[in-house]
Amino acid sequence: MERVRVGLKDVARLAGVSVKTVSNVVNGYVHVTPATRTRVEAAIKELDYRPNLSARNLRQGRTGIIALAVPELDIPYFAELARLVVARAEERGLTVLIDQTGASKEREQLVAEGFRAHLIDGLILSPLALTPEDLAARMDNTPMVLLGERVYEGPADHVVVDNVAAARKATLHLAALGRRRIAAIGAQDDAAAESSRLRLAGYRQALREAGLPADDRLVVPVRDYHRADGAHAMARLLDSGQTPDAVFCFNDLLALGALRTLLERGHSVPGEVALVGFDDIEDGRYATPTLTTISPDKQAIAGLAVDLLADRMAKRVVQGSRVEAREIRVPYRLVIRESTSG
Amino acid sequence: MERVRVGLKDVARLAGVSVKTVSNVVNGYVHVTPATRTRVEAAIKELDYRPNLSARNLRQGRTGIIALAVPELDIPYFAELARLVVARAEERGLTVLIDQTGASKEREQLVAEGFRAHLIDGLILSPLALTPEDLAARMDNTPMVLLGERVYEGPADHVVVDNVAAARKATLHLAALGRRRIAAIGAQDDAAAESSRLRLAGYRQALREAGLPADDRLVVPVRDYHRADGAHAMARLLDSGQTPDAVFCFNDLLALGALRTLLERGHSVPGEVALVGFDDIEDGRYATPTLTTISPDKQAIAGLAVDLLADRMAKRVVQGSRVEAREIRVPYRLVIRESTSG
Repeated sequence: MERVRVGLKDVARLAGVSVKTVSNVVNGYVHVTPATRTRVEAAIKELDYRPNLSARNLRQGRTGIIALAVPELDIPYFAELARLVVARAEERGLTVLIDQTGASKEREQLVAEGFRAHLIDGLILSPLALTPEDLAARMDNTPMVLLGERVYEGPADHVVVDNVAAARKATLHLAALGRRRIAAIGAQDDAAAESSRLRLAGYRQALREAGLPADDRLVVPVRDYHRADGAHAMARLLDSGQTPDAVFCFNDLLALGALRTLLERGHSVPGEVALVGFDDIEDGRYATPTLTTISPDKQAIAGLAVDLLADRMAKRVVQGSRVEAREIRVPYRLVIRESTSG
Repeated sequence: MERVRVGLKDVARLAGVSVKTVSNVVNGYVHVTPATRTRVEAAIKELDYRPNLSARNLRQGRTGIIALAVPELDIPYFAELARLVVARAEERGLTVLIDQTGASKEREQLVAEGFRAHLIDGLILSPLALTPEDLAARMDNTPMVLLGERVYEGPADHVVVDNVAAARKATLHLAALGRRRIAAIGAQDDAAAESSRLRLAGYRQALREAGLPADDRLVVPVRDYHRADGAHAMARLLDSGQTPDAVFCFNDLLALGALRTLLERGHSVPGEVALVGFDDIEDGRYATPTLTTISPDKQAIAGLAVDLLADRMAKRVVQGSRVEAREIRVPYRLVIRESTSG
């Protein structure tokens, strides 16, 4: 079914606007009034115009698309972050392609190495498996911003929460309640588990400051950071006879899993065992008891990630070269709820 | 910074494979062995090859990208679905671009009307605001599959759960426990709220069958389907003096919000009030009490959506015309947990 190729000019003529305006509509840029957009879209529809966008974008070196690669979409923390990144990107006229790496090193590498480089102008990556060496060896030069604590001093801009300080604050809160046997759920043997390592360091620092002995039997490793892992870790802890009077869980999902095990076995929270999580996901606000947690400023994380990336993308066009990597620390706060004060 | 244009042939020569194989790697197709993929990727890196993918894909009329448009990414049901759709698409060598419509009619329309039609080969849309008329008037002919019950008898393939039957089953379960004042949380005034209307119909049908009077004071409308809406609805119900002995909530988030209000106010669940949700999200499996719920086969929903779409995309290439719209019903089951049996 051949047809005459309809061009930008034809659309512009029919809509009574400039070719540049049609191009702006087609590219989804925001600086077009709704009325104009409607007119142009009507013309596009009438002529059945199929923009040869890709070719033009390749010429301009831009697609208006950025990728966000997170380990798992159905981890509430990443889902909330994705929503905020999409919202911020939209404000800047950018479309977000969301990628799920499954925390696999191979997949993260594929993403970082410019898989789809032809398609995207920039990449926001939350790595769980890649090492700083992996990223330093990266050949692709698509602008990239990293989220989370996996890779410090890497070759890219980096948005992060001070995990040591936050974990210390959470643990000191439990000590200040008079708790003496404070367990930690979330340690990971994996050498790559940087955020786990940092939170563990903050937990141990707080114990020292509070004059509490470090008892390694109270530190429970997990494989993943899901509810099931927290539930199993808590069960193992109780089964070992090491009943704690407080637990700092390295994320909220672990805490919600641990909470379930505690209640199921008849332990009162916070009466017998006080509980703190990390992430401030919505689930924790509706659990009974509600969950005390470290609340990172997710709005800031998402906003900064998009803004830093857009800045990189603009600089790349101007300078065609790398600029020094920046590390931005985002604020967090301890939100006290029923699981430590009920 | 000009450079000589490196072509597919150069990569193929260096990697010692055919041009077709390089193309398969570049397009992210799955039918390439890991060893070959590694070799081709090394050659791509060495030559700093930037595939002129878009132009070639336009020639072929395909990009290998499909879009998934859901109302909100941080609604666990949609996050789980997105994970499953991405996984299934990956198996078929398709990349998923995830779109968040915010349940806005304007945004859904934009998506359905071929916004990014130049970029995507197909679209999976979960509409909340669009009417069947809106979709019938759709001009864009990008293959599309609809999820959910918003639009029946529409112009596109459609994957759906039998909401009336599922809601009936949930309500009959409560009646079978001997509950007599069964409330419903999740009615929506909005004429567009089709899934709400169907679940309400199933609830009423079950009351009739169980010989229970329909008491409209026990039907509580909500604005959205979030935890906060469930919590407020439950509070309104209790404040009105209409304490029920059971509640069917039209999704799990509403049920988790209602559960929070009940426990906060000292009502035992299921002792005084039994509770059933809908969706079977993970949160409900770790709540205390765990949540009885209707569990739609999400794996089947995601798999069918991708398969139907891929089929459409293939047919479009062959026939260049529309095929009759199909409606596929996906199985569901009632999962009984502590909130009705604890």
